[in-house]
Amino acid sequence: MIPQRLEKLRGLMAQRGIDAYVIPTSDFHESEYVGDYFKARRYMSGFTGSAGTLVVTAKEACLWTDGRYFIQAANQLKDTTVTLMKIGEEGTPSIEDYLYDAIPTGGKLGFDGRVLTAAQGRSFMEKLADKQASLATGEDLVGLIWEDRPPMSAEPAFLLEEKYAGKSVAQKLCELRSAMEKNGCTVHVITTLDDIAWLFNIRGNDVECNPVVLSYAVVTMEKAHFFVNPVCITDEIREKLAADGVEIHPYDEVLSFVKHLPADETVLLDPQKVNYEIDASIQGKKVEKANPTQLAKAIKNPVELKNIRSAHVKDGIAFTKFMYWLKTNVGKIPMTELSAAEYLLARRAEQEGFIEPSFETISAYKANAAMMHYSATEESNAELKPEGMLLVDSGGQYYEGTTDITRTMVLGPITEEQKLHFTTVLRSNLSLANARFLYGCTGLNLDILARGPIWDLDLDYKCGTGHGIGYLLNVHEAPNGFRWRIVAERRDSAVLEEGMVTTGYLHRGQPWHPYGKRINLPQGCEERRRPVYVF
Amino acid sequence: MIPQRLEKLRGLMAQRGIDAYVIPTSDFHESEYVGDYFKARRYMSGFTGSAGTLVVTAKEACLWTDGRYFIQAANQLKDTTVTLMKIGEEGTPSIEDYLYDAIPTGGKLGFDGRVLTAAQGRSFMEKLADKQASLATGEDLVGLIWEDRPPMSAEPAFLLEEKYAGKSVAQKLCELRSAMEKNGCTVHVITTLDDIAWLFNIRGNDVECNPVVLSYAVVTMEKAHFFVNPVCITDEIREKLAADGVEIHPYDEVLSFVKHLPADETVLLDPQKVNYEIDASIQGKKVEKANPTQLAKAIKNPVELKNIRSAHVKDGIAFTKFMYWLKTNVGKIPMTELSAAEYLLARRAEQEGFIEPSFETISAYKANAAMMHYSATEESNAELKPEGMLLVDSGGQYYEGTTDITRTMVLGPITEEQKLHFTTVLRSNLSLANARFLYGCTGLNLDILARGPIWDLDLDYKCGTGHGIGYLLNVHEAPNGFRWRIVAERRDSAVLEEGMVTTGYLHRGQPWHPYGKRINLPQGCEERRRPVYVF
Repeated sequence: MIPQRLEKLRGLMAQRGIDAYVIPTSDFHESEYVGDYFKARRYMSGFTGSAGTLVVTAKEACLWTDGRYFIQAANQLKDTTVTLMKIGEEGTPSIEDYLYDAIPTGGKLGFDGRVLTAAQGRSFMEKLADKQASLATGEDLVGLIWEDRPPMSAEPAFLLEEKYAGKSVAQKLCELRSAMEKNGCTVHVITTLDDIAWLFNIRGNDVECNPVVLSYAVVTMEKAHFFVNPVCITDEIREKLAADGVEIHPYDEVLSFVKHLPADETVLLDPQKVNYEIDASIQGKKVEKANPTQLAKAIKNPVELKNIRSAHVKDGIAFTKFMYWLKTNVGKIPMTELSAAEYLLARRAEQEGFIEPSFETISAYKANAAMMHYSATEESNAELKPEGMLLVDSGGQYYEGTTDITRTMVLGPITEEQKLHFTTVLRSNLSLANARFLYGCTGLNLDILARGPIWDLDLDYKCGTGHGIGYLLNVHEAPNGFRWRIVAERRDSAVLEEGMVTTGYLHRGQPWHPYGKRINLPQGCEERRRPVYVF
Repeated sequence: MIPQRLEKLRGLMAQRGIDAYVIPTSDFHESEYVGDYFKARRYMSGFTGSAGTLVVTAKEACLWTDGRYFIQAANQLKDTTVTLMKIGEEGTPSIEDYLYDAIPTGGKLGFDGRVLTAAQGRSFMEKLADKQASLATGEDLVGLIWEDRPPMSAEPAFLLEEKYAGKSVAQKLCELRSAMEKNGCTVHVITTLDDIAWLFNIRGNDVECNPVVLSYAVVTMEKAHFFVNPVCITDEIREKLAADGVEIHPYDEVLSFVKHLPADETVLLDPQKVNYEIDASIQGKKVEKANPTQLAKAIKNPVELKNIRSAHVKDGIAFTKFMYWLKTNVGKIPMTELSAAEYLLARRAEQEGFIEPSFETISAYKANAAMMHYSATEESNAELKPEGMLLVDSGGQYYEGTTDITRTMVLGPITEEQKLHFTTVLRSNLSLANARFLYGCTGLNLDILARGPIWDLDLDYKCGTGHGIGYLLNVHEAPNGFRWRIVAERRDSAVLEEGMVTTGYLHRGQPWHPYGKRINLPQGCEERRRPVYVF
């Protein structure tokens, strides 16, 4: 299968004179999770992991992925003719270096310009500058050979009433335009789906667990243009948005729209988010910055904050019922990681305003909980007994907000070491939760309050301590996070502002995984919920 | 006096067609403290503060300084015709904006190119780009009218033996050249006096309390060139350095030397340190980075670390004798801030290998200690009584290293609030001193360990928590520091490396000033000295 697909692709490449073709893991919007339509890298390589980039040349096909996936990728790439490139291992070239060697002087690099960011595309071209290489970015070659490709998602969108959103579209547009003005811009191109959903008070179902609508937006000083599959938009939405000065266009027309923007406009865009094709289509002057909607969306308004508290009360009721059931019945009725997760989901579903889980539940028993992103399958599904610990990391999408909570429950006897680790994580949580700090602090300043007690045991956890969270939106949201080192591509170490909602997410990798989750509201906000710790 | 001097300067400016002349507070080496020869801004304005910039035009003379000096400057500028520009106050233009307005199209900006950094000079020229202004940087106009100018310091230099320095000049040069090579450079221009002193294992006395030698260095792959007043250099030094491949040139020849560097050399330099005239004289390609000597110097070698411990034992003996005298005699014999400082200096001077104080001692009694950089004068000199607290922030230069310690001593009854604050500062010190952290942390990550307990009381201190310290060199040394926000021009938030020596410096501003000082050695090093707290 895979070798035949690769040969077909090579045929198309040869016709077009393309020396190397890059297939990343992305949709057109740089989303964290992508729909099946966008899984071209999986289709061409057989590798199903969430991160990886395939590069195909006339002779070779190579897949770059990171340490989380070395074993899985090695298995899935067997008999595919695809070579595994282990990122971070000695001797593994960067994709840029590989392309530099693979493309002859005057050669041609190809990729679908919509699935690489402007920043990635530019960095490839910089690397290849002295090769005088040309680019072919206008065609999705995988699309040409992918016969049974799943359709692009086109789920119905819905309006988020102002009693949930807390701010009208008109007001959000007004504030955005004032930010554009401050940056000397007359046009702003937004491609990030959560920013668009937030700006237009609209939600949808085009990405699993992320209630967003596949779309683009172009905001000028007079009008806002919303590029979206018209079948997703009801007349009611169309009328409501029209009243706020939002005009609806077909999704695919965004490229020609930005191509025909007057050349004297100054366009605000984020090259790390906007795709290469959009960026290359713009004639005017550019100001390159993070979308102003990112910060505006992160600072929850008073209505959102009130609603979020209410969502957490509901979520807490559901979880408390789950815990009662768990502790009352463990050892008495059959129970597994998966059946426990199902029971919890059913309790959430009983809550008014619940829509769907906010991410795939991690229900992990004993040693399974030591795997950072374990997901129970029918094969791995452990039976729960009245001993050891069960970790459940889960959350819900409600009209009143998004939750993301982790609770570790003791089902029976545990060791002294487990108690020590569990209690240390609790101390970490409390220490960060109770931090008093001056305006100007970022997550970098505060992270050690949580991590310090863990480091004192000579332990560490290999992830951030917390992340921003959307309002009935993505469970991971920038720019507010807690981590001790800047991770450039996450850009989540901004100054903490009153109204931001950040999770405090603590766990450690070996050999079990006692973690608690906490909601932190920076100074001026009361903490909206204390963690639930159950021994 | 001042008006006449300004008129003379304006005469010289008019002859040369200069519209505005900038006189900063700096020597040719961007030193923190400058010798009397370099106090041109003081000579031209009468203002004696440590920070300020004077700009003179045909009609005006304006002095920019910061909040520490508003009162002093207003007093000293009376009857000088110089206008005070309060930095940070609303309505105060930046110097760049002021110059932009003051200089007509096609006009001319003047300054002594040796007393502004390359970065400052470039930023002025950028601001003036659309004015097509020209520059006159080759003359020191103040020097032309300053009749009784003190001579440039030319104190004798001395060699630091390897039993103190721990590493030979040859080895330091070898390591520096390998860093140059890594950066693709064949020449490195060093103008920072402490880097030069460290590199050549030489010390001097050209800046008060900083045992450095006024000099420049240009290191090529084959040779090192040392530009220094020949009267400072004995035959012994000359021979020793020659053996290590260091050639000595007159101080003033550095400009013509860099001007005549072959154009195919690639020159490593730090535009925030190198002066404008040097930078403008270089023809070749430039790589702009911090001097590699900065990090190499900050990571003390094992011999230095051993010696520093020994210096602290000596310093501790001197201080303990001082405390004994103080506590035994207070209220019995006459005692003031200044006489206490004198007694302490005498105890340090008894110690073998003591050279001089490492900075001007802060001896501050009661409310005086609430002023962050109080310096006792004959007028302010408070009498010590058996009550309240005395703060002494002082240090010594020894062959075995530089010390910088602060001790707060209770001389009699103090209030409950003072006890609370004192104890909180102690908790802060201990918390930071006992931090365990992973490699990769910077001061930004750790600062809250010290600051947190203070913030918990709704208090803050308006300075960093700690700074790097030299080895028989400057008491303030980059790149290692503890602070919670990056201060760009200090560049002291680097990753903490084993062997760095950092002070932990805690105090608060109002209404008294209980602080303790601590030496922190990052992981792997034992702490070399515990703070002395005396109640």
